[in-house]
Amino acid sequence: MTSRSQAISVAKMRGDARNSLTDRVAVEEPLEIRLGYETGGERQTRPVSITMRTPGNDDDLATGFLFSEGILRSRADVAVVKPCQGDNTIRVELVDGVAVDLDRLQRHFYATSSCGVCGKTSLDALRVQGNTPLPPGTPTFAREVLTRMPDALRAAQATFDETGGLHAAAAFDTTGQLVAVREDVGRHNAVDKVVGALLADDRLPASEFGLIVSGRASFELMQKALQAGMPLLAAVSAPSSLAVDLAREFNVTLVGFLRGETFNVYAGEERIVE
Amino acid sequence: MTSRSQAISVAKMRGDARNSLTDRVAVEEPLEIRLGYETGGERQTRPVSITMRTPGNDDDLATGFLFSEGILRSRADVAVVKPCQGDNTIRVELVDGVAVDLDRLQRHFYATSSCGVCGKTSLDALRVQGNTPLPPGTPTFAREVLTRMPDALRAAQATFDETGGLHAAAAFDTTGQLVAVREDVGRHNAVDKVVGALLADDRLPASEFGLIVSGRASFELMQKALQAGMPLLAAVSAPSSLAVDLAREFNVTLVGFLRGETFNVYAGEERIVE
Repeated sequence: MTSRSQAISVAKMRGDARNSLTDRVAVEEPLEIRLGYETGGERQTRPVSITMRTPGNDDDLATGFLFSEGILRSRADVAVVKPCQGDNTIRVELVDGVAVDLDRLQRHFYATSSCGVCGKTSLDALRVQGNTPLPPGTPTFAREVLTRMPDALRAAQATFDETGGLHAAAAFDTTGQLVAVREDVGRHNAVDKVVGALLADDRLPASEFGLIVSGRASFELMQKALQAGMPLLAAVSAPSSLAVDLAREFNVTLVGFLRGETFNVYAGEERIVE
Repeated sequence: MTSRSQAISVAKMRGDARNSLTDRVAVEEPLEIRLGYETGGERQTRPVSITMRTPGNDDDLATGFLFSEGILRSRADVAVVKPCQGDNTIRVELVDGVAVDLDRLQRHFYATSSCGVCGKTSLDALRVQGNTPLPPGTPTFAREVLTRMPDALRAAQATFDETGGLHAAAAFDTTGQLVAVREDVGRHNAVDKVVGALLADDRLPASEFGLIVSGRASFELMQKALQAGMPLLAAVSAPSSLAVDLAREFNVTLVGFLRGETFNVYAGEERIVE
């Protein structure tokens, strides 16, 4: 089984101090779920979902997903659950005679040709889609600009204080000025809203702006920052392993655990200055 | 524009005390994004994504999403963005001549026949799928059992302490015993893993177990709890409006902000006893 966490080198900043250390991040990898079933006397297998997940209990994830979607009704429907073609694909075989309504699953289907699970890695898929590494070293962000951003973001969040239940994302410039702030129950939506606001102002690619998010830094958020040409992603909470990989590969600065005067730098440290 | 937060009645518990008050939750509603484009001299419109979002800046959300997916390249590609058929559908019309690669979007396509945006509400859609309200009043969970659960969940989280980056979910019985604990970078994956573990033990529907999650309670998580027949969902953080609606409609007990000796009850209070 693949590990659930992974050791990585990190630069830990506290005020003016800098320490190199090894930290651990949660592993995030794609899992393709395949469903095998009998129809018209023949057995078929088809991919039904791809999800970014932390490895471990993949069998439970696959059957739980299929149960939640109404495909499985009980353990008796399941003939076998087993990994196939490596660690990131799992197959759930139903017993003969279990009727499958694939329409229920349509909303989860993820085009396997570009998914990056089968044969290519997710990072390869991004490269194939035309993304290239950002130019190194520029622009630069002062440490004290970064440490001001969480309070600035929070102060600009209109709805969070009312509800305690919203994520926020913002684009900011190298002086710490907020350029666009958006809120949403979904982190990826908050980031899409910021990117859309930049598009409306004709400011894409946003090669001079950083992006701050109120939660964790996942692969999906890092992908959106890269696509928007943003050279820095700062998260108030933890990054995932795949977010770190992507940041290092495409030369995006990745900051995590940005709290008070401390933060961790996972990639692209040359853009951060005192 | 629909509001971003919504007032609801809440029972606030602190130790043995109970107060009724009005609180606000973040609004969560589906948004269907439609793409209009020209191909072979004719204009077409098709739905390309449905996402659960907080209303507000829907135009930015739609264009930002399409930019992140590589469909839009700049503001110049956009002819017009406007709501259609009510507040929860938005249409992005591209200017003539912009080439569209719909294969890029396939992974986001969500079957509109069952989506609940067009004509039916999301709750109607669940009803149509065969979900029925849970029987009221049983089982019951003691307050002190609930307030013990966050520490119990945290103690059982193997990877979180290493990384600070994982969500957890657990099923527990009325005595506060953990039945299944699972971790993942994705909240919905952690819950799917718990449901899969219950399925493997042939314990579905899990009508005697509560479900605790480390983050927020969204519509999707509440839907998974309901599908698994679980009468109680407890979240360490805030619920969304649609999670509250679903809980009240289908008679699931919904607890939020479960911290220390305090928590809020948003629905199904009769299952919580002293």
